[in-house]
Formats: sequence, structure tokens, C-alpha cells
Amino acid sequence: MRIVVLAGGIGGARFLRGLKAAAPDADITVIGNTGDDIHLFGLKVCPDLDTVMYTLGGGINEEQGWGRTDETFQVKSELAAYGVGPEWFGLGDRDFATHIVRTQMLGAGYPLSAVTEALCDRWQPGVRLIPMSDDRIETHVAVETDGERKAVHFQEYWVKLRASVDALAVVPVGAEQAKPAPGVLEAIAEADVVIFPPSNPVVSIGTILAVPGIREAIAEAGVPVVGLSPIVGDAPVRGMADKVLAAVGVEASAAAVAEHYGSGLLDGWLVDTVDAAAVERIESAGIRCRAVPLLMTDPEEGTAAAAMAREALALAEEVREVRG
Amino acid sequence: MRIVVLAGGIGGARFLRGLKAAAPDADITVIGNTGDDIHLFGLKVCPDLDTVMYTLGGGINEEQGWGRTDETFQVKSELAAYGVGPEWFGLGDRDFATHIVRTQMLGAGYPLSAVTEALCDRWQPGVRLIPMSDDRIETHVAVETDGERKAVHFQEYWVKLRASVDALAVVPVGAEQAKPAPGVLEAIAEADVVIFPPSNPVVSIGTILAVPGIREAIAEAGVPVVGLSPIVGDAPVRGMADKVLAAVGVEASAAAVAEHYGSGLLDGWLVDTVDAAAVERIESAGIRCRAVPLLMTDPEEGTAAAAMAREALALAEEVREVRG
Repeated sequence: MRIVVLAGGIGGARFLRGLKAAAPDADITVIGNTGDDIHLFGLKVCPDLDTVMYTLGGGINEEQGWGRTDETFQVKSELAAYGVGPEWFGLGDRDFATHIVRTQMLGAGYPLSAVTEALCDRWQPGVRLIPMSDDRIETHVAVETDGERKAVHFQEYWVKLRASVDALAVVPVGAEQAKPAPGVLEAIAEADVVIFPPSNPVVSIGTILAVPGIREAIAEAGVPVVGLSPIVGDAPVRGMADKVLAAVGVEASAAAVAEHYGSGLLDGWLVDTVDAAAVERIESAGIRCRAVPLLMTDPEEGTAAAAMAREALALAEEVREVRG
Repeated sequence: MRIVVLAGGIGGARFLRGLKAAAPDADITVIGNTGDDIHLFGLKVCPDLDTVMYTLGGGINEEQGWGRTDETFQVKSELAAYGVGPEWFGLGDRDFATHIVRTQMLGAGYPLSAVTEALCDRWQPGVRLIPMSDDRIETHVAVETDGERKAVHFQEYWVKLRASVDALAVVPVGAEQAKPAPGVLEAIAEADVVIFPPSNPVVSIGTILAVPGIREAIAEAGVPVVGLSPIVGDAPVRGMADKVLAAVGVEASAAAVAEHYGSGLLDGWLVDTVDAAAVERIESAGIRCRAVPLLMTDPEEGTAAAAMAREALALAEEVREVRG
């Protein structure tokens, strides 16, 4: 079975670990969000790609969900001693090595997809990880502070401001001119199922879908497209997704997110059991829906994530059977 | 008193610490060798400049004479895990921060001299440290291995090969087209004395003198130019200087190095007491010479280095008086 997963960071990565456990023989291609990439200290940092790579490769800091395990912060503290920031972005020494290798390879002319493949040679994540695009795309968030409207990098909004102010707009700068990375459209065309994990529908999966050609390829693939709600009980499972949902005029509910994707893209949708009442509304929008436990409460064990993955695959199978 | 010192790495840096102690009120400008600069992992590394900066700024690893104190090696070990080398060059985590800041500033368009000044803002070395040139110069060494002649970067010759094969030639690639960095010629023109510390006469001071205009400015400055022999008892004080001396046809002796600089450039020369017999030969070459203790045996205390600096300044004074 060939599975394509569109993934952001922590939620996507933990779901993927469950998916590998649920479908050990599947051929899994992950299309990773690069809209949260940022240049820091002259280095190219790809937080979402790295979170997937480290999580599946056994190098992740399990407690925080991102960054490396057994991490130290000598480089960062020295940079601060030079007065060089930003200090709000937590890059550890082990993590720095990844960004140094990536930046060196990009400087030598390799595209990000080739660099990601090279980095994965070490981590052996057990999936094929492809950035959504080799072109530079940076998600910017429009905010108003002190009566002045300005755009900040998504990382500044998310990590520095911790989404403490309203997001007025979310713009994947560069997406319109970008092309899907080599292998992205091919993987979608050859997929048996496409899964949207419980990643952020705006700044993770939404950004991937903003790369021209990807949304169309998924819609036209003719295979089940199923997703898992990142909203449980009308609140995002992780963090501050409601802020960026508001920016695109979508309420923070499992049903609203499903409707945001729409039946033209999405065939099936899993909501948490606490949102069982939303199933009817979602199905009336033409999207097959099931209510199942959606909390990845044991990230290290991955059994909850594996159960979620099995439910997603079962829902995909239902969709396939109904279509005949 | 305005003193200009041409400096390489460890020997120059330790001498400078002594000079600061010996002449606390002097205005000291250090023209640093950049011929041993190297790009590693996409980062610009300036070993000699950093050794001077760390030594005078209190950040040096005193035992090895280069690199940072309390150093760790997480980044390097992670780079090795990615299969990215070279492993023979010992970059620590703290040191990496310096190279990251430098590379970022160079990428932003600042010349190396401005970057060096910015780095020194933190270290407060107590001297003005200027790279010999803002232009890229890389010392390459011609060697013959397995019957094949090839050129290797100086760092590869020095650090990886540990000068274990003969140096057939030493070429400061790029020097001919280079210009002295802003402030270099001005500092020489305004100097009261120019000192060659016991740095390598070929790959440190020789490289600085290879930048068009610097040798001429020193010769024409009309002030005492005094040096300290890096060779004591017919062997280099540190490392493998005899190998690169042989490449330029100079025997490894205190007298031969003085003659290599020549009386057209050098007015005074200090040799170690064990080389007292060479004084006559050196003076007959038109270079005033004294035999004094030249071993910096107590790098942390710096008293030996300070005594050497006092001898150098005294010799400069003698030269000045003789000239009238």
C-alpha cells in the first residue's frame, strides 16, 4: 500500500510514528511543510522537516516534541555573548549540525529535496520525506501591534509572540511562484490513500496545499483522502491553531476544519469522541466521518497514534468500498 | 608609543600578551595573518585571528594554545554522524559560534576587517586587530605523495598531515591580487616601532609580507623593525616550521631566518641565549642582534613573554639611538 501524508511538525510526526506501526509494510511518502523554514544566523532551518526526521529517526526530544534529545546549548550561548540573536529560537548544538550540513549543501547547489534525502540517509526515518517544494516559501503572519500593522515571520509569531496577538492574515510568501519538489506529484498520483494528519490546517497542511499543483493532484488522484481533526472539543490539540484559523475565517472546531478542506478535497474525516455530535454536520457536507479517540497521549509508546492511524486507514477503506 | 605587530597564531598571540604587560600604555595594532583561513562546513574559519583574539581576550584554551577554553564538541560529533568532515580539524561548539557570526556577517556584505572588529567588541583584546587583507588569500603547500605532486591547503598540510611530508613550495594563493585591509598601511606609517614576534617566518609573517604594499610600507616607514627568532637552537620553538623554511630554501636557524628577512627590512633581531654564537653572523649581515631568553615557558603568567617584549623594545630603542 502506498500512502501519502501531508505533514507539519509535532502532530504530523507523532501520527507518522503511529502510521508506521499500524502499517509496517506500507510505502509511506511524507510531503513536508517548509513554510515555517527560517534563516537564522545565516543558516537554513527547516523545523517541520527536522521534527519529522528526528521523530521517526529516534533523535527527537520526546518531552518537547521538537529538537534533539540530550541537547546542549553552547553555540547559542556564545552567539548571545556576541550579541547575535534571536534568542527566542531554541537551537541546540546537535541541531545546529543539521542546519550547518543543510546550509553547506544548499550553498553547493543541491536542492532542498536532495539535501533532505541526504540528511535522512543518517536518520533512516522509514518513510520517504520530501519537502513540498525546493523553492523558498516563508509563511508570514500579519499582526497589529501598537496600532501598526506589520508582517512577521511565522516563527516570530508562533515562537516569539506565542500567538499572543491576533493573526490578521497568513500568507505563504513565495508559494504562488513555487513548484512542487521532484517526486511530490508522482507520489500523489501513485498513492492508494492520502492522509492529512492532525497538523495545523492553515500553516502546515494549508501551506502545502498552497503550492500550485499539489491540491489539484490530490483532488484528481481518485483515491481516498482522509484527515484527522487537529481540533478536539473546540480547542486545538497542540498550541495555538485557533489563532491562525481565525485569520482565515474558520472557527476552531472539528467540523469547521473539515468544511474548510471541503468535500472536493476531503473524502473522510476523523473527529474525537468528544466531538461525536459534529459527525452529522460533517457528513451532511459530503464528508464521511467517524468519531474515535484522537489524543496522542503517549507519544513515546505511540499506541494511541497507531490506533488513530488504523482508524484513518479503515475510514479510507470505507470510502473506497462505497465508491466501488 | 605606537607599536605594529605582524602576527600569526600561538607564538604571536603569546608574545602579544607579554607586550601588553611590558608596554601597558602603548597603542598596539596587530596585523593578523589570514593565509591560514579555511572554509569548513560552509563557514569561514580564521585560526590565526581567533587565536590572537581568544588569547588576548581571555577565552583561549591555554594548554593547547588555540581554540576555546571549556570547549565541547557536540556539533563536530553530529557532523561526523552525518558523514561530513573533515574530522581532522578540531572545531568546538564555542568556536563554531565565532565562525557562524563571521560567516553571517561576511554573507551580509561586511568585509573581514569590519567583522573582526565586531568580534573584538566582545573580546576586548586590548589591541587593534586588523586582518592583513579583506581579500581571500589561502596558503597552499605543494607536496608529493605516492609519486604525485599536488597542492594542499596549509591547514591540511599542518593539521592533517602534521608536516610529515616535505613541503616543496608554499604559495599564498590570491596574495598577488590582494590589497592590505583598511588601516594596515596607515598603522605602519604611523608606527614608532614594528615588531615581528616569534611567528612562522614563511606561513605567518611571510604571508603578511606577501600582500603587495605591506613589505614596502614597513621598509619605508623609517622606524625600527625588530624581530624575535622563532627558531631556538636550530629547531622551531613550536611545531614544524623547519619544513616550510626548507620549502623556501632557508635553513632552520636563528641566523638564517634573520638573513631571510634581510637588512633591507629588519633592523634588529633577538636570538635565544643558546644561539649566542650566531650574533656575530647576524650583525655582519647588517642586523643588530642580541641573545636573550626566548622561550615562553609560562604561557599563563606571561612573565617570560613580557621580558621578551621588553628586550624587543629595548633593541628597537638601540636601533633608534644608533640611527640618531
